[in-house]
Amino acid sequence: MVLVAARNPLNIGAAARAMSNFGFRQLRVVKPFEPSFREARSAVGASELLAKARDYATLAQAIGDCALVVGTTAVRHRQLHQPLRRLEYGAKLIRKQLAIGRVALLFGSEKFGLSNEDLSHCHWLLRVPTCEDNISMNLGQAVAVCLYELIRDPKAPDPQEKLKLASARELERLTGALLDSMRASGYLERRPISDVEDRVRRLVRRLQLPAQDTVAWLGILRQILWKLRSGAEVTS
Amino acid sequence: MVLVAARNPLNIGAAARAMSNFGFRQLRVVKPFEPSFREARSAVGASELLAKARDYATLAQAIGDCALVVGTTAVRHRQLHQPLRRLEYGAKLIRKQLAIGRVALLFGSEKFGLSNEDLSHCHWLLRVPTCEDNISMNLGQAVAVCLYELIRDPKAPDPQEKLKLASARELERLTGALLDSMRASGYLERRPISDVEDRVRRLVRRLQLPAQDTVAWLGILRQILWKLRSGAEVTS
Repeated sequence: MVLVAARNPLNIGAAARAMSNFGFRQLRVVKPFEPSFREARSAVGASELLAKARDYATLAQAIGDCALVVGTTAVRHRQLHQPLRRLEYGAKLIRKQLAIGRVALLFGSEKFGLSNEDLSHCHWLLRVPTCEDNISMNLGQAVAVCLYELIRDPKAPDPQEKLKLASARELERLTGALLDSMRASGYLERRPISDVEDRVRRLVRRLQLPAQDTVAWLGILRQILWKLRSGAEVTS
Repeated sequence: MVLVAARNPLNIGAAARAMSNFGFRQLRVVKPFEPSFREARSAVGASELLAKARDYATLAQAIGDCALVVGTTAVRHRQLHQPLRRLEYGAKLIRKQLAIGRVALLFGSEKFGLSNEDLSHCHWLLRVPTCEDNISMNLGQAVAVCLYELIRDPKAPDPQEKLKLASARELERLTGALLDSMRASGYLERRPISDVEDRVRRLVRRLQLPAQDTVAWLGILRQILWKLRSGAEVTS
């Protein structure tokens, strides 16, 4: 990743942090505003990545060993001289190229982005699909989003197993316990329902109750039922 | 989007900026560190979105009208009591739910993330697929990446048309002009090549020359050829 003329040490640090989060290692910096670069490097918690970042006097030197050079831009309507690709599609092309050689991904300064001269070094340009109302992203956030898209894996297995749902027998026991509690509390006397057993059975079915929770629910209902009945005895 | 106990005004501002970039409107803030929230709101360029952000005393109030509550976490190994989903997959579920009701996406404080109590309000948890070496993201960057995944559209048409390539006739003219220049410059006398015409033709074919550029290339070669020939006349 190549930062061109970045001025804000916080942004340089944020770019390095996103690289570290997503496993990118080589940060190159072109014409950095020297005090900012020094400050970013010496910041508490500044990463090894930032310490190893190389700075270059010209963009041509920074990208010399790269077979594909991609510039990022928020601009959409200015006359661009290169193909402009949405991040989703552009990232695919970058991943292909990464399999066979080095790719430089360029980010410009916070205020002006990449200059026309910078852009002329690029094979094509990349844009994050932001809203028309506010196309300009914070530098650190733009870096994070682009690098995330490069490493995202739609086929990654979701390690989370689906919760095993309660069996019909468990649901039937729960339905029975709930009906007992409803009767004991006087609910059914106050609001008589036709087909009450069928309705309550469907009510319980719709919960998609996890198997692991049936014991807890049964315990709660039985305790309530016990209290209702013992309370009834005391007050009766 | 719900920010719980965020402390850094820059991060609150960055979260709001990413929301604006990706077209999300409702920011809710729970127990913000008051001076930070005030500072973020009054910052130069603070968005309308931030001005309209509502703050709540409790998380339960902030998410009261949401049918799905998703917490974000960097944690992977702590015993979690809810399903933990990778962003790529989790975002799909969130998009489905957004079609039928409100979804709350929760981000915790910079230092501690969401508390166990906060997490107990969530239906499930979301994690950005960061590297094991550095799983902890900057808050503003994590927000940007999550919201980007929610709005990304792999099927968005790439508005960029492919460049029309030069026709065989154009390539043949270029091949001829290049051969003429090679001869005039003495290249072929110094390095005699067998099958030179075939080799140069293949050399030109491999360029994938855009049709729009053939005139410029021919012009350059012809000017060079003219200069080579007139120079030769002068010095002969």
